[in-house]
Amino acid sequence: MEISQLINILDLAGVAVFAASGSLVASRKEMDLIGFGLMAALTGLGGGTLRDLILGREVFWLQAEWYVAVCLVVAAVVFFVAPMLQRRFTALLWADAVGLAVFAVMGTHIAMVEQVPWIQAMVFGMMTATFGGLMRDVVAGEPSLFMKPEVYVSAAFVGGGTYLLLLELSLLQPVAAVIAVVCSFLVRSGGIIWKWELPRYKPKAGREY
Amino acid sequence: MEISQLINILDLAGVAVFAASGSLVASRKEMDLIGFGLMAALTGLGGGTLRDLILGREVFWLQAEWYVAVCLVVAAVVFFVAPMLQRRFTALLWADAVGLAVFAVMGTHIAMVEQVPWIQAMVFGMMTATFGGLMRDVVAGEPSLFMKPEVYVSAAFVGGGTYLLLLELSLLQPVAAVIAVVCSFLVRSGGIIWKWELPRYKPKAGREY
Amino acid sequence: MEISQLINILDLAGVAVFAASGSLVASRKEMDLIGFGLMAALTGLGGGTLRDLILGREVFWLQAEWYVAVCLVVAAVVFFVAPMLQRRFTALLWADAVGLAVFAVMGTHIAMVEQVPWIQAMVFGMMTATFGGLMRDVVAGEPSLFMKPEVYVSAAFVGGGTYLLLLELSLLQPVAAVIAVVCSFLVRSGGIIWKWELPRYKPKAGREY
Repeated sequence: MEISQLINILDLAGVAVFAASGSLVASRKEMDLIGFGLMAALTGLGGGTLRDLILGREVFWLQAEWYVAVCLVVAAVVFFVAPMLQRRFTALLWADAVGLAVFAVMGTHIAMVEQVPWIQAMVFGMMTATFGGLMRDVVAGEPSLFMKPEVYVSAAFVGGGTYLLLLELSLLQPVAAVIAVVCSFLVRSGGIIWKWELPRYKPKAGREY
Repeated sequence: MEISQLINILDLAGVAVFAASGSLVASRKEMDLIGFGLMAALTGLGGGTLRDLILGREVFWLQAEWYVAVCLVVAAVVFFVAPMLQRRFTALLWADAVGLAVFAVMGTHIAMVEQVPWIQAMVFGMMTATFGGLMRDVVAGEPSLFMKPEVYVSAAFVGGGTYLLLLELSLLQPVAAVIAVVCSFLVRSGGIIWKWELPRYKPKAGREY
Repeated sequence: MEISQLINILDLAGVAVFAASGSLVASRKEMDLIGFGLMAALTGLGGGTLRDLILGREVFWLQAEWYVAVCLVVAAVVFFVAPMLQRRFTALLWADAVGLAVFAVMGTHIAMVEQVPWIQAMVFGMMTATFGGLMRDVVAGEPSLFMKPEVYVSAAFVGGGTYLLLLELSLLQPVAAVIAVVCSFLVRSGGIIWKWELPRYKPKAGREY
């Protein structure tokens, strides 16, 4: 598989899961269908838009209809499915974790392609991974996931760092990308589970989940 | 009347009413005159700035002094007039509604001019219409109008959708633009009045107006 | 000393003090080391990034590693030093005041270099000075310094205005820049002290400091 194909698949997957997390927030806020669409697009496309603006590239969804279409389809599906979910916040947390891992690596990769020095490339990874979710939380007026005590920005850092390290060790880009996404996701999962399992022993602190 | 003239008039009108809504928030927060100016500029210019950045155009107010000047004049007028208003929140709501309708159509129009596919053009309409007001509410630390149960994003959606539909039916651009602005405003007005008239029969829920 | 050298020094100093203010917020929120780094970068680089995007320049930290490196070093230092500070909010307030003064003048200067009309140049000054701190406060979910009753945006306005006025009077750029930074800082200091000294006579209102 070529890197460009894998990048496209990962990118679209990241957009889709972030769009799902945005739609879940729209559901928690009891917005209408159009509101779901906008929250999905904001969350799914926000991080990559900022990345592309700062890199001076054409914004990735400007000419490719796929990205916006995926956000709208995801929003429509979540609109009908979310009321059946018992724990929307849990679903949101995991969708966000997948998006975080994918975009941390994508952001770093694209910055490297654009010849940005590695230290800035790491910043691009963290920015792409966190900005969409941040916008989602700010717009919804919720405390951002970002500020909670679970490992969040660090998971994005691990994703970008692992990717650059594996490239340095001469691994092929697709292999390095997949390993880095998995590492980043595992770190974030650890953070979620650590916070999430704990309340089983201290039930009172667990209400918000 | 040519479309370019109409566009300029509508654009300036949208900036002015959004600037008024920003100034009204500054008034509610008891900011000083300079604070009024910045809130007016942020709200009036925010949506179009994001639109132009993503489209890769020159930001519309960068070389044209008119836009910033209009924001500052509006801020100064509101600074002296607002204390006389009995219901600043109501004035804010209606100024925001006019700006929303105008910018939904403007955003869609400008994206079409830049050859963006129609589905993205709709997103540009919604983004241009809502972003300035969103920034206003986030900066002021108020719950965004956006999240309230009245029809908001949907009104922007109707504006952009109507405009594209009427163009498809071969109407002249200025005619299509005016009809679309009116439709969008009516939808939003319906949402406001529905929420606003209701409390007359249930007085307790109406306190916030 | 040439203006370009002075600009670089001032710019880096502004980034460093804003990075410190972002790190202090991270400390108040009990984030981890990576979180400190991101808050430092967001606050230190945010205002200038927006300025450069709107001006259509290359974003200033894209190819120059210094800026990101300075943010990370500051974040690491604050990470270890902050717990020793008795009054983190006070330190934050003063770091923010220095950054505000420096960036108000820098933003105005760079907009002038890019041939932007003076009225917009003033807006760029205020935007560059306030946006990083605004992002810091929004992300942290704190009421923005911006909305507090002390003189804030006005201090940025004074910085940009003084700079343009002194250039009009044919002062050399480095001299004008230094005087303008000092004026802006004095105005902001006055605002802080006025709010801060007052509580000595009315102890109850002073709790938050």
